[in-house]
Amino acid sequence: MRTFNYDIMDSIKERWSPRAFKSTPVKEEDLRALVEAAGYAPSCFNEQPWRFVLFHEAGQVTRLKSYLATANREWNQEVPAYVLFLYHKQFQHKGKDNRWAAFDTGTAWGYFSLEAHRRGLVTHAMAGFSRSALAEALAIPDNLELIALVAVGEYGDPSKLPEAYRLREQPGTRRSLEESLLKGELPQSRL
Amino acid sequence: MRTFNYDIMDSIKERWSPRAFKSTPVKEEDLRALVEAAGYAPSCFNEQPWRFVLFHEAGQVTRLKSYLATANREWNQEVPAYVLFLYHKQFQHKGKDNRWAAFDTGTAWGYFSLEAHRRGLVTHAMAGFSRSALAEALAIPDNLELIALVAVGEYGDPSKLPEAYRLREQPGTRRSLEESLLKGELPQSRL
Repeated sequence: MRTFNYDIMDSIKERWSPRAFKSTPVKEEDLRALVEAAGYAPSCFNEQPWRFVLFHEAGQVTRLKSYLATANREWNQEVPAYVLFLYHKQFQHKGKDNRWAAFDTGTAWGYFSLEAHRRGLVTHAMAGFSRSALAEALAIPDNLELIALVAVGEYGDPSKLPEAYRLREQPGTRRSLEESLLKGELPQSRL
Repeated sequence: MRTFNYDIMDSIKERWSPRAFKSTPVKEEDLRALVEAAGYAPSCFNEQPWRFVLFHEAGQVTRLKSYLATANREWNQEVPAYVLFLYHKQFQHKGKDNRWAAFDTGTAWGYFSLEAHRRGLVTHAMAGFSRSALAEALAIPDNLELIALVAVGEYGDPSKLPEAYRLREQPGTRRSLEESLLKGELPQSRL
């Protein structure tokens, strides 16, 4: 059970990452809206390091599933659509490494996930897929990093999940706020 | 001017990263609520790699400003509070490098930014600060990375900003959706 100390956005409180998906197709328009929402994330120098590949055509979705790690494949059978999140490793104008590229792309994923929730869609980001094989099959240039593959669809019937996943099919809890807060006291000497 | 192709969340459409802040203090309770919202971001293995340091006590806030890059210091004079975002570089249970730590912490920052907007607060994430000096002053352990320093407060009076910043004081635009979408077609051969 999730418990909250503060009044926070309903969509943040309600969103979670289920594994039970309906096979009902996701409209391309919905996927594009999610990507538009993602793109309004802030980023270092407004670099917008994120890139996306949409998968919603049935044949492509089926092929994509062959790149999933075995454990993910077990619950992905019904997933009707995916969005692959990538980022540019270098700043475009200077070619220097962008050490905020992953962070900024994570922010974009955050916006994406909340807009999906608002549209009645569920999402589940996965790290478990054959990154190099997928990059090669999609002819992704070397300066782009594949960071997450996000399953998108309507919430399905958890009773159809393999038992191990069925038992875990509930919103994840979080450690206490205190455990995320570091005490930091700046000494006087600096001034 | 921002233009939108799709109907997306108002808070995503409206949020931006201003530089005009009021000096009115931010309640500690608000900062804690923002961090609670941040902590409900999804993360790889629910690792929650993010950590935070809150700065709201006037003396600490003033001292923190001495660590800002010069360009940031110019517009930060009124900023009443900060949250430093850090992440654990390794997974806690196995000690292996967590390649999603920055990405996941970016997601947490996304949730933080939208909850701030809901509370009538503005935020501006900065990369320009003396990371190593600040890490040392705060005695941050080596396995934690400082990724962003976020200014938090009420929106202020843009006419008080130095001219260069005053002229830029409007919501940032974004490149077109098409430029963020890569065409990816999986070849048949894999199956």
